[in-house]
Amino acid sequence: MTDLVTFGETMLRLSPPDHERLETTATLELRAAGAESNVAIAAERLGADAVWASKLPDSPLGRRVATELRSHGLETAVAWSDEGRQGTYYLEHGAAPRGTNVVYDRSDAAVTTTRPDDLPLDAVRDAAAFHTSGITPALSDTLESTVADVLETAQAAGTTTTFDVNYRGKLWSPASARATLTDLFSAVDVLVTAERDARDVLAREGSAAEIARGLADDHGFETVVVTRGDAGALALHDDAVHECPAVETETVDPIGTGDAFVGAFLARRIAGDDVPTALEYGTATAALKRTIPGDVAVVTREEVEAVVDADAREISR
Amino acid sequence: MTDLVTFGETMLRLSPPDHERLETTATLELRAAGAESNVAIAAERLGADAVWASKLPDSPLGRRVATELRSHGLETAVAWSDEGRQGTYYLEHGAAPRGTNVVYDRSDAAVTTTRPDDLPLDAVRDAAAFHTSGITPALSDTLESTVADVLETAQAAGTTTTFDVNYRGKLWSPASARATLTDLFSAVDVLVTAERDARDVLAREGSAAEIARGLADDHGFETVVVTRGDAGALALHDDAVHECPAVETETVDPIGTGDAFVGAFLARRIAGDDVPTALEYGTATAALKRTIPGDVAVVTREEVEAVVDADAREISR
Amino acid sequence: MTDLVTFGETMLRLSPPDHERLETTATLELRAAGAESNVAIAAERLGADAVWASKLPDSPLGRRVATELRSHGLETAVAWSDEGRQGTYYLEHGAAPRGTNVVYDRSDAAVTTTRPDDLPLDAVRDAAAFHTSGITPALSDTLESTVADVLETAQAAGTTTTFDVNYRGKLWSPASARATLTDLFSAVDVLVTAERDARDVLAREGSAAEIARGLADDHGFETVVVTRGDAGALALHDDAVHECPAVETETVDPIGTGDAFVGAFLARRIAGDDVPTALEYGTATAALKRTIPGDVAVVTREEVEAVVDADAREISR
Amino acid sequence: MTDLVTFGETMLRLSPPDHERLETTATLELRAAGAESNVAIAAERLGADAVWASKLPDSPLGRRVATELRSHGLETAVAWSDEGRQGTYYLEHGAAPRGTNVVYDRSDAAVTTTRPDDLPLDAVRDAAAFHTSGITPALSDTLESTVADVLETAQAAGTTTTFDVNYRGKLWSPASARATLTDLFSAVDVLVTAERDARDVLAREGSAAEIARGLADDHGFETVVVTRGDAGALALHDDAVHECPAVETETVDPIGTGDAFVGAFLARRIAGDDVPTALEYGTATAALKRTIPGDVAVVTREEVEAVVDADAREISR
Amino acid sequence: MTDLVTFGETMLRLSPPDHERLETTATLELRAAGAESNVAIAAERLGADAVWASKLPDSPLGRRVATELRSHGLETAVAWSDEGRQGTYYLEHGAAPRGTNVVYDRSDAAVTTTRPDDLPLDAVRDAAAFHTSGITPALSDTLESTVADVLETAQAAGTTTTFDVNYRGKLWSPASARATLTDLFSAVDVLVTAERDARDVLAREGSAAEIARGLADDHGFETVVVTRGDAGALALHDDAVHECPAVETETVDPIGTGDAFVGAFLARRIAGDDVPTALEYGTATAALKRTIPGDVAVVTREEVEAVVDADAREISR
Amino acid sequence: MTDLVTFGETMLRLSPPDHERLETTATLELRAAGAESNVAIAAERLGADAVWASKLPDSPLGRRVATELRSHGLETAVAWSDEGRQGTYYLEHGAAPRGTNVVYDRSDAAVTTTRPDDLPLDAVRDAAAFHTSGITPALSDTLESTVADVLETAQAAGTTTTFDVNYRGKLWSPASARATLTDLFSAVDVLVTAERDARDVLAREGSAAEIARGLADDHGFETVVVTRGDAGALALHDDAVHECPAVETETVDPIGTGDAFVGAFLARRIAGDDVPTALEYGTATAALKRTIPGDVAVVTREEVEAVVDADAREISR
Repeated sequence: MTDLVTFGETMLRLSPPDHERLETTATLELRAAGAESNVAIAAERLGADAVWASKLPDSPLGRRVATELRSHGLETAVAWSDEGRQGTYYLEHGAAPRGTNVVYDRSDAAVTTTRPDDLPLDAVRDAAAFHTSGITPALSDTLESTVADVLETAQAAGTTTTFDVNYRGKLWSPASARATLTDLFSAVDVLVTAERDARDVLAREGSAAEIARGLADDHGFETVVVTRGDAGALALHDDAVHECPAVETETVDPIGTGDAFVGAFLARRIAGDDVPTALEYGTATAALKRTIPGDVAVVTREEVEAVVDADAREISR
Repeated sequence: MTDLVTFGETMLRLSPPDHERLETTATLELRAAGAESNVAIAAERLGADAVWASKLPDSPLGRRVATELRSHGLETAVAWSDEGRQGTYYLEHGAAPRGTNVVYDRSDAAVTTTRPDDLPLDAVRDAAAFHTSGITPALSDTLESTVADVLETAQAAGTTTTFDVNYRGKLWSPASARATLTDLFSAVDVLVTAERDARDVLAREGSAAEIARGLADDHGFETVVVTRGDAGALALHDDAVHECPAVETETVDPIGTGDAFVGAFLARRIAGDDVPTALEYGTATAALKRTIPGDVAVVTREEVEAVVDADAREISR
Repeated sequence: MTDLVTFGETMLRLSPPDHERLETTATLELRAAGAESNVAIAAERLGADAVWASKLPDSPLGRRVATELRSHGLETAVAWSDEGRQGTYYLEHGAAPRGTNVVYDRSDAAVTTTRPDDLPLDAVRDAAAFHTSGITPALSDTLESTVADVLETAQAAGTTTTFDVNYRGKLWSPASARATLTDLFSAVDVLVTAERDARDVLAREGSAAEIARGLADDHGFETVVVTRGDAGALALHDDAVHECPAVETETVDPIGTGDAFVGAFLARRIAGDDVPTALEYGTATAALKRTIPGDVAVVTREEVEAVVDADAREISR
Repeated sequence: MTDLVTFGETMLRLSPPDHERLETTATLELRAAGAESNVAIAAERLGADAVWASKLPDSPLGRRVATELRSHGLETAVAWSDEGRQGTYYLEHGAAPRGTNVVYDRSDAAVTTTRPDDLPLDAVRDAAAFHTSGITPALSDTLESTVADVLETAQAAGTTTTFDVNYRGKLWSPASARATLTDLFSAVDVLVTAERDARDVLAREGSAAEIARGLADDHGFETVVVTRGDAGALALHDDAVHECPAVETETVDPIGTGDAFVGAFLARRIAGDDVPTALEYGTATAALKRTIPGDVAVVTREEVEAVVDADAREISR
Repeated sequence: MTDLVTFGETMLRLSPPDHERLETTATLELRAAGAESNVAIAAERLGADAVWASKLPDSPLGRRVATELRSHGLETAVAWSDEGRQGTYYLEHGAAPRGTNVVYDRSDAAVTTTRPDDLPLDAVRDAAAFHTSGITPALSDTLESTVADVLETAQAAGTTTTFDVNYRGKLWSPASARATLTDLFSAVDVLVTAERDARDVLAREGSAAEIARGLADDHGFETVVVTRGDAGALALHDDAVHECPAVETETVDPIGTGDAFVGAFLARRIAGDDVPTALEYGTATAALKRTIPGDVAVVTREEVEAVVDADAREISR
Repeated sequence: MTDLVTFGETMLRLSPPDHERLETTATLELRAAGAESNVAIAAERLGADAVWASKLPDSPLGRRVATELRSHGLETAVAWSDEGRQGTYYLEHGAAPRGTNVVYDRSDAAVTTTRPDDLPLDAVRDAAAFHTSGITPALSDTLESTVADVLETAQAAGTTTTFDVNYRGKLWSPASARATLTDLFSAVDVLVTAERDARDVLAREGSAAEIARGLADDHGFETVVVTRGDAGALALHDDAVHECPAVETETVDPIGTGDAFVGAFLARRIAGDDVPTALEYGTATAALKRTIPGDVAVVTREEVEAVVDADAREISR
């Protein structure tokens, strides 16, 4: 039985080396990158049996995505399409005061036409959990409808549904996002949201704990996780609030931090760990992710546990 | 006064190093690449004062294109657009029996909405020559109409209009191309076509000379140039046929060979050289281009003349 | 049901870029490389459902191997070991008269202690075919015994056993190889051998067809395939000899040519194609492999079929 | 009409990647680098129409410089020379306590023989401003005389003359510099100096404001700008002192910081902004420059304004 | 006369670029790396005439080591062996909380069979000093015996014997190390130990000064140096304790810091400097090492002295 | 005793990767390169004990040269100079019809002021052979005089003097070269010349054998070697003419071919081999050099002997 099925777009990420600018670079580094595949890989590496489901163009670019995802041990359930593009994004790493800049080139991606029957619904029904994020419904009307259908299908089958708000200002406005997402929330069991998104998009106020409680009250979530950057993460579950500080990091690449957190959190919850333990794995995996180039948390469970146990050494030889 | 204005799409070309495959590569080389900017650069380097006109998205990707083109001394007349993508293409260099493969990702490019008033029409009218290729009208209905308008505008102003058939099977069928192009031909003074395109697209038969003569007879071209790969090039002008053999090359990168030929041919014609001389510059520049990575003929006039004079040495020190 | 299980050592291949020498290089390219995983990948890419089975050290180096193999869609059945090294080899690409040089550093690899129960014997029994090569028994006495056991187990279960002689002079002498291999041949259904190995190691004489017939007569092989480099390949099957010429190539990296041939040949045989057809796929895949850096045939079935159909074009755009 | 003409040497900068040492590196990164072209590029990118004037050798190395400068949209007015070298400098990036080290190899550069009539004097006379720095007269006696002539020519024509002290201890002694520069100051309208240079070279004492006032009093400058590193910049203009703090940065490459400041300051002054505003653009551009590899501020006006407005975000997506 | 002979294993160090992980990297940087050759190079660069003695396999890999070591001006006294491997180690640079990770692949290295007569014993006897570290006897029983013999031979000949504890937890346990090392100490004149090793391996307690005094009292060392990371270093010599603070650094690569310290300390002691001066050179060289990629302190004596004199400037031009 | 002392300039060679052009490249490969150090390295690698003597600037660039030369096992006798530049040359690899282009930037190199007492004259007198080439006297009048002095000193001491004509058209005219070289010839024992240089510079006519005989007759050379590119080499010695064909090669980098020939020829002559044998080593080493990037023949004696014995295999594993 599969532990976790995730669904969403995975793009090719194209980034200049070092701190070069897109405008003048002669080379680009190429990596597969997508919130939901990032989550699936983190979960797989933390012990879950994960499947990433999506649609890709039947081209060398689509195959490039699948090739890299599979390398992490993930199962890929791909609807290969003769139509639609391979989404890409260009990433320029910043340094203060120059911000890290993302240029999306993902319109008309093959994934935007995904309908429920493009997806492995049997696997979704059999899985312990199904996950997607707020990026997916933002990509097309078709996807908004598909996400709603699949969340309902999953929930109806007893699969825990998990959802990360993951607001992207370059895709939609806060108001549109709020409208769409709150419609989806009735079919969501576990909500993850950055505190900033809760405030700016979901229009929540108060402390992080108050935000979590308000969301749970309004939408009936089984669990609400609020991620708070340097301030760590907080979860409301069974009416109890659990807090977990962040692990200090030297950041090499911040992209994918939240996804690493979610994947590890879900993997440990699926494995039966309690919420505080899952939060610890989540924050440790997120911290390790920040030290690794690319979107993906290329970690082992042992490495994560060493951070949880705070016994990682500076040089091991 | 400008010698030459060219108009067309310039893409970002993304290619794996050496002979790596797109499916497994970790890096991509990034270069600006487009038939009409290739022509303009070759012309500029051979002594013409060239302008490349087009529409680009107002983004780091669009600026990346302009940045590279300007480096060759070209003037760029860009309509910066808030809409439309930056077209890209992925290039995988082959080795027999594996063909060189081009994956276009150019749909909905900003350029596809270019209307005549996005272009420097005054410069077109004042220029000695205006050039575009069969790729441009293949990209959108808007562009088909714009190309027709601008060719007519140029011709009416006394600017020599030059056109390269440049058939791309991944953009349209031979029948569509033939229909569209033959409609444009009445406003074209100088036609360049690969012999293969003349046969497969323009449905011409007979020898290269017969093809040239037939095209000139049917469409009233002032000059017809037929490029023949290893067999060199042939031009019909003032009722005379001029042939020029190809220069033997060790090929490093074949993309852009035809554009280098056209740019050099036009530059020398504009400078007042006769057709046989212009053919020699064209074939020499084309041969040099094949030794240079990228779409662009990074050559000097001295280097081209050394090839024309056949006195290039193996090592010069 | 699995189509093909292969078993053997996969190493990390470390090679200087371009034609740099090991003695002076500052960087190395890193790739997974092993005869039997090369075969499994080629088979998977040609449509078979393939599993590669082996033992790897539980270290970042062992994981590096599994990571790359899985990227090709292969299932990996790995016995993770706390003992034994990750085998490596250093590859220096030559250019005449400097030969390509391989420096093995594979002693005491984890794989050398593999016993039958480290392997997925149920999958072997259920598979259509099981494959290994003469490299595997050359690596240790334990492996010699394990190979004998697994071939017998497979054959007893009705799995077709396939074996590539694959002689490596840096591992053992021709006499040792001949003694060991001929002992194994009774459990082999399909033998593949380079003509040179048949002569130098198996001490066969006569034409390639006579060699095939002699081997079939002496050991009762169902099929004997003799690969002949530039001269193509020949197969004896059901008392008929089938010949297939080689496809002309521009060689980028010759390593893995034979494995690509075997993988494609087996995939098509398992899929039900006849021997002449399988030979065509084998020689086409081998030719494409030579154009690709690394040990692995990163090809699609469509590309192979285009070579078989001889309609690959120089540039496709 | 041109806004700004700058004049000075542009070198090829050769630097090892990462923190490698020159003594052991196998590769070098190559970029065009020169104080006055850095200024011109920053000005162009901030909205000025800039021309860089100089002499370069007519060689691939000289062309390499022009190629890169033109890519930034700059107009280049180059006297191509058959004599004289292309100046180079080798840059080794340090990390405390290892200082960043510059090895100049610029003797006998073509630029050192530049006479006024090698320069576009008409453009200088027509421009809003003419700029050079203390490096230029340090390079040769000819250049000392040429700088004096051109400053006078410009000032006489009503062009604002701007001058950055830019002391280089590897070119001349403080005493020589002081003697030469103070001779030039009578033809300078706007002086820029690092506080350290004002003290060590111009022998000024007191606070930065006192230094500015003293210089203005002694030499009749219209504006004096004192740059103070982490302490920001200060300008004396119309008898008022304006201070502007520095923007905090994570430094990727410090070379060219001062030039970025000057280019942006001048561009905004020429565009009509007041001194405090121009200082803000200058410090913001300088801060962004420090995040970009190479000598050149590859920025857009929008990016600079986001820093001025303090609304740059860590990740924009 | 040789100043210093060092003896120990030098490996090939293989490390992914930037912060890439071994599990996913496509390239590795290759460098020679070994505690005792690091010491010899630092000593040579600080003015000593140093020889590195060891055994290497007669292969491109062994030659790669010698080639790089010789480049630093070192004399290499190599016993070329037809047996035994070239030891390697894989280094993955970390970033908090991900530790820098070393994967040794050094078993059965050629060096492990080194016997005294493989070494240049006459040079050892004639040298001012002979140095090895605790890594060497940890590698094999043969090496434990060889180290004991050579230390005795050296001491008997009047050569100062120096020894760095250099404990490696991946090679042996603290208890084994303590037993072996304390047996060797009777033949050691100068002991260097990290404070942590003194506590964890040599089971010493108290302050660093008490540790030094205790070691000197128990084993009769002429000099004991205790290195203390950020806290600098301390030496007991002639009954006096000398302390030296560490120099603040921005760390690029921490590997080899201790060896750089030892090499510089020894070079200056051999040159006749007193212990406090040698400590200053040691800490300055160690600080510079941390700014340089690789194991080796690629420094000049002038650079070290600039740090000692605290007059290194941020940018020198 | 030293076998061979060579004297001449060694430059830093800066070349774009692959076939990139200098005008557009972003990176350069850096290598030490000089005719006489190339010869010394080839000789050292073929078994001679070689010393390279020259003057270098006391800078990171000068040290970069020495560092690389020493890595090959060569002894370097360097006069470190506070004056004069480090010579460089920029190398652009061609492909027909684009020639390989060398841009020298070697004027005012430190070496140009070398006087005899900067050189290790005792080593020259004690050596079996002393070698320089026609490049050295072309660099400055001082060097012309120094070369004459040192050749005479060597010859007077019984050291065999060897000289390679090595004409460089970018340094001097044929007439100047002929005048200078023929003055030097009285102090030369062994002359090596390309057949083309013999004709174009030394104004010789007739067959290669006639050229050799004429030179020997006119100047009293003990041995004359004429290298003939693809046609191999020919030597006149003891009144006998020995011919040796060239070895067929796939050329990776042609620079340094002649130097590799000379180094190997001299090493074997010094070792006592007869002229025909030395020619075989020379042509084999020259052929191997052409397969190796850079100026230097990074070969082993075993590899050369395998080519001499014609038993090099395509892949050795």
